[in-house]
Amino acid sequence: MTNPRMLSGDRPTGRLHLGHYVGSLANRRALQRSYESFFILADLHMLTTRNSRADIEAAGVNARHLVLDALSTGIEPALSVFYLQSAVPEVAEAALLLQSLVTVPRLQRIPSLRDMARASGKEEMPLGLLGYPVLQAADILSLKADAVPVGKDNAPHVEVAREVARRFNHLYGDTFPVPRLVSADVPTLIGTDGQAKMSKSLGNAIYLSDTPDQVRRKVAGMYTDPNRIRADVPGRVEGNPVFQYHDLFNADRGEVEELKARYRAGRVGDVEVKNRLAVAINAFLDPMRERRARFEAEDGLVERLIVQGTERTRAIVRQTVHEMRAAMGLNGIYPGYRGDAPVPA
Amino acid sequence: MTNPRMLSGDRPTGRLHLGHYVGSLANRRALQRSYESFFILADLHMLTTRNSRADIEAAGVNARHLVLDALSTGIEPALSVFYLQSAVPEVAEAALLLQSLVTVPRLQRIPSLRDMARASGKEEMPLGLLGYPVLQAADILSLKADAVPVGKDNAPHVEVAREVARRFNHLYGDTFPVPRLVSADVPTLIGTDGQAKMSKSLGNAIYLSDTPDQVRRKVAGMYTDPNRIRADVPGRVEGNPVFQYHDLFNADRGEVEELKARYRAGRVGDVEVKNRLAVAINAFLDPMRERRARFEAEDGLVERLIVQGTERTRAIVRQTVHEMRAAMGLNGIYPGYRGDAPVPA
Repeated sequence: MTNPRMLSGDRPTGRLHLGHYVGSLANRRALQRSYESFFILADLHMLTTRNSRADIEAAGVNARHLVLDALSTGIEPALSVFYLQSAVPEVAEAALLLQSLVTVPRLQRIPSLRDMARASGKEEMPLGLLGYPVLQAADILSLKADAVPVGKDNAPHVEVAREVARRFNHLYGDTFPVPRLVSADVPTLIGTDGQAKMSKSLGNAIYLSDTPDQVRRKVAGMYTDPNRIRADVPGRVEGNPVFQYHDLFNADRGEVEELKARYRAGRVGDVEVKNRLAVAINAFLDPMRERRARFEAEDGLVERLIVQGTERTRAIVRQTVHEMRAAMGLNGIYPGYRGDAPVPA
Repeated sequence: MTNPRMLSGDRPTGRLHLGHYVGSLANRRALQRSYESFFILADLHMLTTRNSRADIEAAGVNARHLVLDALSTGIEPALSVFYLQSAVPEVAEAALLLQSLVTVPRLQRIPSLRDMARASGKEEMPLGLLGYPVLQAADILSLKADAVPVGKDNAPHVEVAREVARRFNHLYGDTFPVPRLVSADVPTLIGTDGQAKMSKSLGNAIYLSDTPDQVRRKVAGMYTDPNRIRADVPGRVEGNPVFQYHDLFNADRGEVEELKARYRAGRVGDVEVKNRLAVAINAFLDPMRERRARFEAEDGLVERLIVQGTERTRAIVRQTVHEMRAAMGLNGIYPGYRGDAPVPA
């Protein structure tokens, strides 16, 4: 029996940071032996909010970084299929065939789409953004994924994919497995500014690819308890990002408990707490740095993984689109037609 | 110098009737030597309002009839490229790449889309229907059509294509000609019921493929002046569909003027007016019947035209999508990638 298939991924808009690790990569790595894991480099999704020539060119570089970032966390090349969404053009055909199965009001009720429109500075919702959950449904369904790991922002989109699968199966006969949502109980990581979720766009992120020195400088500049103007003032541990990070990334639990006690009692300076955190995060990142260096040293490895993964994905998606067309009755229109093959002359 | 390229077409939802002839086919035939004419069999457009398995299967038969109907009017196979939209999957990719260039409110302001939603019995607008003008823009732009003949319903959709072309050219560099709207000053043909525009769905149509006997029966049942209860009651010619048809299809102008004069004076029965109209329409359709019979006798001609036209169209659309990707910077993401070719291993 083969493992169920899982699809996850990211937009190639930058490097991955500790928030991604906590929110999804750790989970993906934990599941990689239980699932056949596909990892989408979602550049077409990026176009729904960022479509300048500069954004698209950066996506080429960022896609490579996403793969390296994932590999650095211990996601194994032999267990994961990385693919570039825009290089599987059959997904566009699948999305088009699914577009009549979802209504505009249904999509307009998804709150995260409005947030995305606002965050991307668009005054009016682009059609591509409204249709983004349908494109995502096409990604999932054309791969016949059984499971999709989701954070809370993404769950309503996967719900659309489930509805579309059921609707297609009802109208045209069983074609798609209805994908399961796999939600891990993961915390949202606050940024180094203590103000908002860690995010590439807010400048409050520690990247998996940061150097030890970058980590030290970012940790030194972290937000802590603002009422604590001197080391002998008792401080708050709860909601303090420095201690949230200690809890998550410092393997020495004894040290963390000791620092918390001293902090509450006003018997430790912020500098010491942060220095120890920088050491802890660097210790946490060191194995990732070693893996990254190893994979980077293999010339062309990342490109080869993307090309091979994309080709493997295309073969699956092509076959699914062929099945979709057959189920709908589109293939019968003229003899011998297959959308994926040259038209016979 | 080559002729400018023109795109027109129909949804494969039924046979073509006299209303289509008056509203578009006559115009297409008149322009066929001035333009390189592409004729889309728009089955993907059909999916936006009709997507049952039965509708899709019927589209296969109807697509063949559309071609025969067009050929019967004197549109010449050597001068027109007929192609099946769903067999050019690269159009879906073009549509996806264009979706971020149009906003949802812009599309929602097109009144005909709401009418189409209502007419198709959908309570809520499907995403595919809202996106239909963008798919149409993809049809037009991926062919680099210079001109699109339009009726008044269709003009706002072609306006979207023009906006999308300008927006793409502005963002990514000159890629598309901005297509011109070619509008012919044509009358809308009332149906045989005298109540509404001639339409496949209203049972008030005389088809180009009707037999002489079918024409006689439909004309005999036509709506005329309802106040004229006897042949000696003076009748109204204006707004009377029987006389509109005489004006359009009866080549014997003298006969038409004589009938009008006698009708106004109460000196001719409806039966005679209708009998002469049936004779006139059959005389009008006879050359179409002869052409149709000739083309039908060539075994496999229609299928061959569709297959060859589709292959020719695919070659153009593939090339355009490649140019679109290059202009956007999508091709650079990994070396050697072309969406239309297998990914290099």
